[in-house]
Amino acid sequence: MSVERAFEGQRVPPWREQLTARALVVSFFLSVMFSVIVMKLNLTTGIIPSLNVAAGLLGFFFVKLWTKALEQTGLLRTPFTRQENTVIQTCVVAAYGLAFSGGFGSYLFGMSSKIAAKTTEEDTSQNIKEPSLGWMIAFMFVVSFIGLFSVVPLRKIMIIDYKLIYPSGTATAYLINGFHTLNGEKLAKKQVWMLGKCFIGSFFWGFFQWFYTAADGCGFASFPTLGLKAYENRFYFDFSATYVGVGMICPYLVNISVLLGGILSWGIMWPLINNQKGHWYPADTPPSSLHGLNGYKVFIGIAIILGDGLYNFVKVLHRTIATFVAAARQGPSTLPVTDDDSPASVIVSYDDEKRSQVFLKDQIPQWVAYGGYVSVAIISIITLPHIFPPLKWYFILVAYIFAPVLAFCNAYGCGFTDWSLASTYGKLAIFVIGAWAGAAHGGVLAGLAACGVMMNIVSTASDLMQDFKTGYLTLASPRSMFVSQIIGTAMGCVIAPSVFWLFFKAFKDIGEEGSQYPAPYATIYRNMAILGVDGFGSLPKHCLTLCFIFFAVAIMINLIKDLVSLKIARFIPIPMAMAIPFYIGSYFAIDMFVGSVMLFIWEKINKPKADSFGPAVASGLICGDGIWTLPQAVLALAQVKPPICMKFLSRKMNDQVDTFISSLS
Amino acid sequence: MSVERAFEGQRVPPWREQLTARALVVSFFLSVMFSVIVMKLNLTTGIIPSLNVAAGLLGFFFVKLWTKALEQTGLLRTPFTRQENTVIQTCVVAAYGLAFSGGFGSYLFGMSSKIAAKTTEEDTSQNIKEPSLGWMIAFMFVVSFIGLFSVVPLRKIMIIDYKLIYPSGTATAYLINGFHTLNGEKLAKKQVWMLGKCFIGSFFWGFFQWFYTAADGCGFASFPTLGLKAYENRFYFDFSATYVGVGMICPYLVNISVLLGGILSWGIMWPLINNQKGHWYPADTPPSSLHGLNGYKVFIGIAIILGDGLYNFVKVLHRTIATFVAAARQGPSTLPVTDDDSPASVIVSYDDEKRSQVFLKDQIPQWVAYGGYVSVAIISIITLPHIFPPLKWYFILVAYIFAPVLAFCNAYGCGFTDWSLASTYGKLAIFVIGAWAGAAHGGVLAGLAACGVMMNIVSTASDLMQDFKTGYLTLASPRSMFVSQIIGTAMGCVIAPSVFWLFFKAFKDIGEEGSQYPAPYATIYRNMAILGVDGFGSLPKHCLTLCFIFFAVAIMINLIKDLVSLKIARFIPIPMAMAIPFYIGSYFAIDMFVGSVMLFIWEKINKPKADSFGPAVASGLICGDGIWTLPQAVLALAQVKPPICMKFLSRKMNDQVDTFISSLS
Repeated sequence: MSVERAFEGQRVPPWREQLTARALVVSFFLSVMFSVIVMKLNLTTGIIPSLNVAAGLLGFFFVKLWTKALEQTGLLRTPFTRQENTVIQTCVVAAYGLAFSGGFGSYLFGMSSKIAAKTTEEDTSQNIKEPSLGWMIAFMFVVSFIGLFSVVPLRKIMIIDYKLIYPSGTATAYLINGFHTLNGEKLAKKQVWMLGKCFIGSFFWGFFQWFYTAADGCGFASFPTLGLKAYENRFYFDFSATYVGVGMICPYLVNISVLLGGILSWGIMWPLINNQKGHWYPADTPPSSLHGLNGYKVFIGIAIILGDGLYNFVKVLHRTIATFVAAARQGPSTLPVTDDDSPASVIVSYDDEKRSQVFLKDQIPQWVAYGGYVSVAIISIITLPHIFPPLKWYFILVAYIFAPVLAFCNAYGCGFTDWSLASTYGKLAIFVIGAWAGAAHGGVLAGLAACGVMMNIVSTASDLMQDFKTGYLTLASPRSMFVSQIIGTAMGCVIAPSVFWLFFKAFKDIGEEGSQYPAPYATIYRNMAILGVDGFGSLPKHCLTLCFIFFAVAIMINLIKDLVSLKIARFIPIPMAMAIPFYIGSYFAIDMFVGSVMLFIWEKINKPKADSFGPAVASGLICGDGIWTLPQAVLALAQVKPPICMKFLSRKMNDQVDTFISSLS
Repeated sequence: MSVERAFEGQRVPPWREQLTARALVVSFFLSVMFSVIVMKLNLTTGIIPSLNVAAGLLGFFFVKLWTKALEQTGLLRTPFTRQENTVIQTCVVAAYGLAFSGGFGSYLFGMSSKIAAKTTEEDTSQNIKEPSLGWMIAFMFVVSFIGLFSVVPLRKIMIIDYKLIYPSGTATAYLINGFHTLNGEKLAKKQVWMLGKCFIGSFFWGFFQWFYTAADGCGFASFPTLGLKAYENRFYFDFSATYVGVGMICPYLVNISVLLGGILSWGIMWPLINNQKGHWYPADTPPSSLHGLNGYKVFIGIAIILGDGLYNFVKVLHRTIATFVAAARQGPSTLPVTDDDSPASVIVSYDDEKRSQVFLKDQIPQWVAYGGYVSVAIISIITLPHIFPPLKWYFILVAYIFAPVLAFCNAYGCGFTDWSLASTYGKLAIFVIGAWAGAAHGGVLAGLAACGVMMNIVSTASDLMQDFKTGYLTLASPRSMFVSQIIGTAMGCVIAPSVFWLFFKAFKDIGEEGSQYPAPYATIYRNMAILGVDGFGSLPKHCLTLCFIFFAVAIMINLIKDLVSLKIARFIPIPMAMAIPFYIGSYFAIDMFVGSVMLFIWEKINKPKADSFGPAVASGLICGDGIWTLPQAVLALAQVKPPICMKFLSRKMNDQVDTFISSLS
């Protein structure tokens, strides 16, 4: 049963050999690819599934291809090891992680005038920072590295002492270990082949769809699959391969929660509130105004997200402190592990010994960590107020004092729930710093910028700890991983803003409601910042009451989930997931539901096959459609427009249009 | 290797027991289903693949379901035998055969004023016979039974003496024999399950498509899959499950021929001829006029069909006479069988003995056959001139004198080529009787009616001989089969006109070019009749020359196909198949091509599975889409219109339409 016995014959290369040039080249291309995908997801719904498996799989595939090709020519010097695979994986995760934590779909884009135009505040001049490639890259460099240094000292505590599980990291490690055994290589090849097929299919499906989208409301993305009435309320299957794939990766409960949220909001609540038009809010408010129906959509969603976030924050904090206190009393070696069936408590003896030995060999000196943290913090404190004038230096200082604590909380919580609460910590920063700065001194912009500072540290802490767990389980050197993370972060600091810039320039209607890229979280984050600064005065009638109700309900549901047995809890929806369609509609929920139904049927027919190939199919669908976005953006930049509009008209309207068309000729 | 040894334990039930009530009930429902499907195919392209396998499969499935249900209740008295299966099969074939040979997509519909309006003749009053349920049923009863009687005396000669192969009949028999062995039942169940899945998928796909077809040019059937320019030249994939299924059943060569024909005509020739507008024909001719481009489309198509038909007629006639003469010289026992690998020459001894014995036991008295033929002919001669005044009694008499000879030719030719030339004999009748009656005396109508008389006899002769071969190989009694054929024909005489009537009433634009049901052969048949009566005077410039060239080319290609080795011949396209898209366009050719590509890939991946399940998938696709036509017709009759139009507009047109729509609100 020992994994490491299977690898006993293989030499573990020293850390410098794990960091090969080919690994970095492959990492670079995969980083670009995943950054595009994450950016697309950021700007459509903000739901981002774990792509670690796909990164591991594709990293294996490309380096294997590379080494095979070199083997043919006889030029291969270093064989491909699982440590190298882990290095690629960690580099890619570090890079594409910035596409999310850089806030291009949330706080950073929320600073733009485009999003500001959709919100309530009056005094916008000092609260706007237009996106521009220069300052975005600078900002990324300043805030992204600090997270790296905060993680280093925690590494040994989390992995060796506490033996935390880190489900995603463990899963990736098993995958990589699997690939590098002989049988595993065979399976990996089949998985890659499956992924490749779905990738190509999904890519060309995106390409095919493109031809029919000559204007807004054209093409498959506007297909009223469930009828025109349902389409008006944003219930339709929009043929997005991405979200079908996302639905296949996300747990069933998430998919059902999202769909339930969509039905509750767009199916029931919004039509009911719309009936009160003229009573609760003036009938003549434009549909996009937050003083009308849109206000309910945005703020009720925010209330649920905040309620859920707060509950989980308190819960994780409480657990963290409790176990920490218990551990401090009993000494590290007997620290309780939350789940007794976890791999950490099952595999002991040989594997653990071997892994700990490797993991502790290549140390990263403590002074590098602390020195790095302090010097980056100083640079950050000096630089950031120049980028965002309302963000005073003492705000940043305070943020950096509290950040390591929060980073620890998040990394620890993530270790047994697999759920990073980075965005919750970000929201916390929005409210605290925003209120501190005040409405008169650009509090909105200050809050959003502080959110960025906080989110980057906290998110990096949990992401990279997952990677260290992977490294621990694959005998990768912590030093090579640390260097790889630094390189990955540097790549990400350039790639992520560039990719965002491409989207921003290529798709003109980005950020607009009902468009292809509505960037819902950009609006939500900005509104949260305004709420924190301005208070609740400007909301439409009963909106605040509803917000309080839903805030309380979100907490209640979480409480009930924790109190009842696991059997029942797995049927109780997740409030956070339910809140997403509140603002943008249910179309992606239907895509995801289709994906999960497909997976469900597949599992019924052939469970082992579905388990082995499900993630590959899903990754293929997501990656293919995501990569199609690149040529699509290039075409848009080159002003090449699709030739045909596939339009959907009601029968009555169609008769009028037909009469109009025949009158033309 | 003996099939009959496997069945040795089973008693062959007497002929009365083979004709059960359940068999007739199942036959009735299958007859309705297949009549709808064949009618749909008749009215769309006129390409009708063999549905015998589907009939056998579904017959097995339904009676098995029935007997299983009765077994549960303990009420089952007679077990389900393969003879009963054959009886169902032959009854269904007899019934749905009339949906084709009744000419609802060709000569009968060609008599209507709708088709007449599209042709060239001036004096139409006496050449028109509007469809009406009453006379159509009467006509069917009068002309359909005579074929039955003409077959009976030929039965023993073809099956026992000549040991002809009848590929389709033999294949069906192997299928039925297979089903009734234990292993076969298992496979049959899987096949039925596959067919069922495809049936349901195809049905709901049809249903889904319906919602988006609010007006002409809406919906998936108008999807410019290959771009707008290609769509204008009728190159597009129209998402028809039927023709994808047809493509899976038809040999690759047929699919490729059809596609080549489409490329040659709509891709090359019509655009070139269109350039001569104003030179070869007046620029102001309406697009549907036969004096313009349409004339080339129709008459060049006819020339190819006639050339191919004539060649095959002469060829088959020559072969028939040659082998017949040889047989007469040497006596029946040593009659040469064309193909030495045929089952007839491999399986001798036990199987043959047993089968011959059963086949010869239940004789049908010769006086029934001859008496029946003469009396039906007399009724026909008296009745038909009342229905079609220009069709004089002596025309019919002459037709009935020559018919048995032609029926023999066709049944014999079909015995080793599997290719029924019924429509060629029908065309012969059009020309001979049409010219004889003359333009002044309603020759067009007389020709079309004579075509019906001839086609029914000749087509029945080959169809039912196929069934007798099936019966011979499954030990079904010829007497039970004959009775089943009579019942099936009677059913068909009512079902086929009723189904056509449903289509005619439900789909208003039936017979119109570019509509869902263009009924191409109705136009072609009527034009052939006019050509026979009036001569070639009214054709546009160079059209006749082109017709002669293509007529000659069609004969040439056939000749080359016969002269070169089989290896090369199977790459030479079939002129008859190439001619079909000449008039209606290539969209269905692309559907069929998609179907054949799917089958090709499936065969590459898993040949045994593709071989076992390909026909089931194809049948499911055809049947599901075909049956959807029934509710669709009912909806159309009830004036329920689809709510949405899925429209395809060029970008420029879309901009104008968008401006128009926004000006409305």
